[in-house]
Amino acid sequence: MGSAVAQCPHGITSHSTGNLGQNKLGYSSRCSKFPCQLDFARFGLLHQGSSAASSSDHSTEFGRRINAVPDMDDMFWDKVPTPLLDMVENPIHLKNLSVQELKGLASEIRSELSCIMSEKPNSLKASLAVVELTIAIHHVFHAPVDKILWDVGEQTYAHKILTGRRALMRMMRQKNGLSGFTSRFESEYDSFGTGHGCNSVSAGLGMAIARDIKGKRDRVVTVISNATTLAGQVYEAMSNAGYLDSNMIVILNDSRRSLHPKIEQEPKTSITALSSTLIKIQSSKSFRKFREAAKGITKRIGRGMHELAAKFDEYARGMIGPQGSTLFEELGLYYIGPVDGHNLEDLICVLQQVSSLDSMGPVLIHVITEDNHQDAECNEKIESDNPQEGMITSSLSLKLKSNNSTFFHIFVDSLLMEAEKHKDIVLVHAGMEMEPSFQVLQETFADRFFDVGMAEQHAVTFSAGLSRGGLRPFCIIPSTFLQRAYDQVVHDVDRQKIPVRFVITSAGLVGNSGPVYCGAFDVTFMSCLPNMIVMAPSDEDELVDMVATAAQIDDRPVCFRYPRGAIVRTDHFMHPGIPLEIGKGRVLVEGKEVALLGYGAMVQNCLKAQALLSRLGIEVTVADARFCKPLDTELLTLLCENHKFLITVEEGSIGGFASHVAQFIALNGHLDGTVKVMNIRNFHFW
Amino acid sequence: MGSAVAQCPHGITSHSTGNLGQNKLGYSSRCSKFPCQLDFARFGLLHQGSSAASSSDHSTEFGRRINAVPDMDDMFWDKVPTPLLDMVENPIHLKNLSVQELKGLASEIRSELSCIMSEKPNSLKASLAVVELTIAIHHVFHAPVDKILWDVGEQTYAHKILTGRRALMRMMRQKNGLSGFTSRFESEYDSFGTGHGCNSVSAGLGMAIARDIKGKRDRVVTVISNATTLAGQVYEAMSNAGYLDSNMIVILNDSRRSLHPKIEQEPKTSITALSSTLIKIQSSKSFRKFREAAKGITKRIGRGMHELAAKFDEYARGMIGPQGSTLFEELGLYYIGPVDGHNLEDLICVLQQVSSLDSMGPVLIHVITEDNHQDAECNEKIESDNPQEGMITSSLSLKLKSNNSTFFHIFVDSLLMEAEKHKDIVLVHAGMEMEPSFQVLQETFADRFFDVGMAEQHAVTFSAGLSRGGLRPFCIIPSTFLQRAYDQVVHDVDRQKIPVRFVITSAGLVGNSGPVYCGAFDVTFMSCLPNMIVMAPSDEDELVDMVATAAQIDDRPVCFRYPRGAIVRTDHFMHPGIPLEIGKGRVLVEGKEVALLGYGAMVQNCLKAQALLSRLGIEVTVADARFCKPLDTELLTLLCENHKFLITVEEGSIGGFASHVAQFIALNGHLDGTVKVMNIRNFHFW
Repeated sequence: MGSAVAQCPHGITSHSTGNLGQNKLGYSSRCSKFPCQLDFARFGLLHQGSSAASSSDHSTEFGRRINAVPDMDDMFWDKVPTPLLDMVENPIHLKNLSVQELKGLASEIRSELSCIMSEKPNSLKASLAVVELTIAIHHVFHAPVDKILWDVGEQTYAHKILTGRRALMRMMRQKNGLSGFTSRFESEYDSFGTGHGCNSVSAGLGMAIARDIKGKRDRVVTVISNATTLAGQVYEAMSNAGYLDSNMIVILNDSRRSLHPKIEQEPKTSITALSSTLIKIQSSKSFRKFREAAKGITKRIGRGMHELAAKFDEYARGMIGPQGSTLFEELGLYYIGPVDGHNLEDLICVLQQVSSLDSMGPVLIHVITEDNHQDAECNEKIESDNPQEGMITSSLSLKLKSNNSTFFHIFVDSLLMEAEKHKDIVLVHAGMEMEPSFQVLQETFADRFFDVGMAEQHAVTFSAGLSRGGLRPFCIIPSTFLQRAYDQVVHDVDRQKIPVRFVITSAGLVGNSGPVYCGAFDVTFMSCLPNMIVMAPSDEDELVDMVATAAQIDDRPVCFRYPRGAIVRTDHFMHPGIPLEIGKGRVLVEGKEVALLGYGAMVQNCLKAQALLSRLGIEVTVADARFCKPLDTELLTLLCENHKFLITVEEGSIGGFASHVAQFIALNGHLDGTVKVMNIRNFHFW
Repeated sequence: MGSAVAQCPHGITSHSTGNLGQNKLGYSSRCSKFPCQLDFARFGLLHQGSSAASSSDHSTEFGRRINAVPDMDDMFWDKVPTPLLDMVENPIHLKNLSVQELKGLASEIRSELSCIMSEKPNSLKASLAVVELTIAIHHVFHAPVDKILWDVGEQTYAHKILTGRRALMRMMRQKNGLSGFTSRFESEYDSFGTGHGCNSVSAGLGMAIARDIKGKRDRVVTVISNATTLAGQVYEAMSNAGYLDSNMIVILNDSRRSLHPKIEQEPKTSITALSSTLIKIQSSKSFRKFREAAKGITKRIGRGMHELAAKFDEYARGMIGPQGSTLFEELGLYYIGPVDGHNLEDLICVLQQVSSLDSMGPVLIHVITEDNHQDAECNEKIESDNPQEGMITSSLSLKLKSNNSTFFHIFVDSLLMEAEKHKDIVLVHAGMEMEPSFQVLQETFADRFFDVGMAEQHAVTFSAGLSRGGLRPFCIIPSTFLQRAYDQVVHDVDRQKIPVRFVITSAGLVGNSGPVYCGAFDVTFMSCLPNMIVMAPSDEDELVDMVATAAQIDDRPVCFRYPRGAIVRTDHFMHPGIPLEIGKGRVLVEGKEVALLGYGAMVQNCLKAQALLSRLGIEVTVADARFCKPLDTELLTLLCENHKFLITVEEGSIGGFASHVAQFIALNGHLDGTVKVMNIRNFHFW
């Protein structure tokens, strides 16, 4: 236990200006309390089956983890003192702090986040935007009894710091470290896992209904971001919340950072002293009670009157609120806002008013946050740490130049070449955020590039419509987000045999982005579709050819996948794409006895294995399947006839390439004692 | 050719009171024109590769099809004369008809539909509701140059009658007959396939954008129904349409028949003479131009003014329109309505006004239709043909009693039994429409039954929330609609290992509902997930046990599938469910040499095959896998060791049960020359 305390990274610091003794004690007790807040047996150690681990095991585990933090001294370098934060082990310690102290705490969290996240300016901005909101929520509500849900990873950093995970923040997105998202396996304060965004209202509504059924009285607070409100699920959830009329609080964190240009074009709602007062009136108990009473009376009077009263209420309040407020009202959520997301007094006042109401149905609080909001104290530091927008752009373009031979950049280049040949190529992009080098495409294609944001379902059917309108659409969606549009792929594209070209990015493992972005299932769920052509390039040259192939196919849908940031050759010379013969693979190395049949980027691993084995005197065949559907049956027959072992290698789940190979081989009798088939998947389940 | 003409079912009838000679001639030319309107080579004969069939082939094909109509005399029985309809071969023949004639035409179509659909009162109602709307659309717009899209099958029947498919209407949903939906393979007037609903705005927007890019001037008209507006995709599509601001017309067919009780609770918007006039003003060119001009000016004046003007416009128009109109305005669609969907003058006037506008962005026309609207002429007949609501209910309950041993009813009964044991069971249902016997569940569970309508994404995450709130949710979704929530299953349930019990209905082939409802892929896309338990009952007894198993599992998600309406035993006695051992199959019949390993209802087919073979003196083993994941590896090993052939039998696509079996067998070396593995799928691709 002692060693764990002694090595707590933030607790004991010579810069600390607060009550050092209390801090020490505070941190010491924090360390010993950690096991209660973090379920270490499950956290990072899933499937170990030791969930009954004792408290001392927890401490040891914690010690081990702390010991594993690399180069502890780095953390104390230039550390700003954080006396208030040092006292906060979990949200209950926020309860008795004054607004002034909470402001100080916000400032300390900002400085801590700036320090931790200095290398990720975009994540830092998003996480800084919600510092005051997070403090206000934890000050007013009583987590973990009250349920707080988030929908975007970056929003949760301040929440993580305040809920006992401060010491582990630097190990975020590292092996055995903190998740970049909330996770129910990580802390009891994370009541639901964030991930693809847009799930928090649905999940929160479920919890609110469960609470009602169980006769409990805890509160449910869900935070959504404005980018998320583009997703259909949020609309479905709000509409259902309005209908079920259960008590829940939805907080719209409106940082105006949506991908959707429309929102950015609109003038930013200004927060004035007037609106601040008006919001307080809106959220006040008497105002809401009056409204409820009025509604009750008019309901009794009769339809017409009720409708009129509701309309009057809506318009009267609409005149106060900004454009957009009526949308939420239409869905059945009582709209309050906009509230300045950096004004702690306002936030706390509104949240307290709302939390004190008993049976008012779902409420939406519209909070405006500034990405660039910084308080005076840490202004200078962050300014120097974080380059301005322009600087980010220029560093991006530098990056583009230096790394322009990843799959990703090659795809962009080859698409530009194809667009020269086929003037009817249009691009549709959907997903949480757009990879930076797509900006090149956006600029080049201008009015032929459609970034629909988090609206994958629409993106796919929209592409089908473009195709039926006589254009040649490429629909670009990361593997894991394509799952959100699966039904549209099935019915609006494949069943109708409409030529849409799916570009599946981030296919396979995605490094420290973790399971939330892992593209594990696309080969499986795309290659079971009757009309879809499914292919994957083994290297950049083949990607260029596959882009050409996809552009040429005009009688059925096609998809190809490539992994994130993989680089096979850095000295790549761009050749014009030559369409491949559909359903034809190729043999790269001829050997005997054993054949390795790779699909996609895994062909490179086959080649590496072949090279290693070759040095041992074992000559194996390496083949590049290119197509999962239709399979190259000639190649397969040849491999089966001339080898004792056929090993398929892919990066994806069961049901994919290997299953198609096994199906063909079994049905064609090649398993009748001549060849043995195995498969390797470079894929770890979460 | 002659024979085809002579046998046209509707053209020549002694009841005809119109110009008989002209009718005959009209129909004769219709028959010879058919091949131009219907692409027979593809229609119903997909994958035959004879798309270059000559015109005479078309005629022969048509003749064959007409000949195949069973019992032609039935069609003339009690046939109401249809002189106007007989003259309409395709929509161009509507152009010169007067409003009075169009009204007559509507009446004739109603009578024809009532005659054709007499056995399906619900479908009839939905199809009758849009007769006037369909006529108005085809009168004003110029299909197939102008694109008309629908989103629900029943809405398209009048459209099919008016677009050259009248003669084939009785063969709807039959083998080689008309599809119950629009299909681009069936007619050039069907610009996009309807299916799961909610896709028409996305597809229409795609076509509108394609038209803009190609510099064409055709119009895009998409019809959506109010049930569909619950689906997130419609919201995504409208939001994107508002942003892209391309010219398109969205018609909301508001029959107030949504599953969502909220909409039904609301007082129905009344159509008065006043609103009719106001709508005409709203849609008039000058009003819209004035608005555009005002917007332009205020944009130039500056932000504040622009916002105020926009708000004023919105509120001024909001006072005219019904509740709900501002939702569409918020999304960026210009709202016009409500329009009486049975008033042809109003419909035509509004559509003409809107179609004459050149660059006004997306417009939403809110049309109120009555399910029970009938014109005086055919009132009596339909009344006698179609039972009232009450009668439908009572016939339903009769049905329930007489058929209560399908999988479906057994599921309901066993769930009720489990709910006695587990008081925390809650039900979430999503999908296009609820199967009638779920009404029993809805009544029994009352406030523990949540029917969210067409909001599958929300349904799944909502279930996860209920589970995290401490309840025991069963989430009931038809196989093909579960595709719409795949990402939520992956990330909000499976990755977080949250115990949600998925009840996958309509799994496998679905008879005459066709490919749109075919549940082909669920085993594949569910069994590749790491934490999901995937099972399927072979008969009703096993279904009862699997409901008990699912209710008991409380540490991970589980799903089970059952087919539509399959009945194994009619004399079924209900036993209390006994939870099965997870991952354990069973041997039903012991034989030698050949083992049949069935999954789900296909086990019955294995037993039938075994009985047939047994008569031939061949004794085969039949095993019931029960679980696709985890597999019963002991059983598999045993089957492999004791047989020369192992044949898996399932109803689903590649990547499912057979792939899991093949994977295990290959990895465990059972393929080393001892057993040969084959698989059979009772599954036809579309």
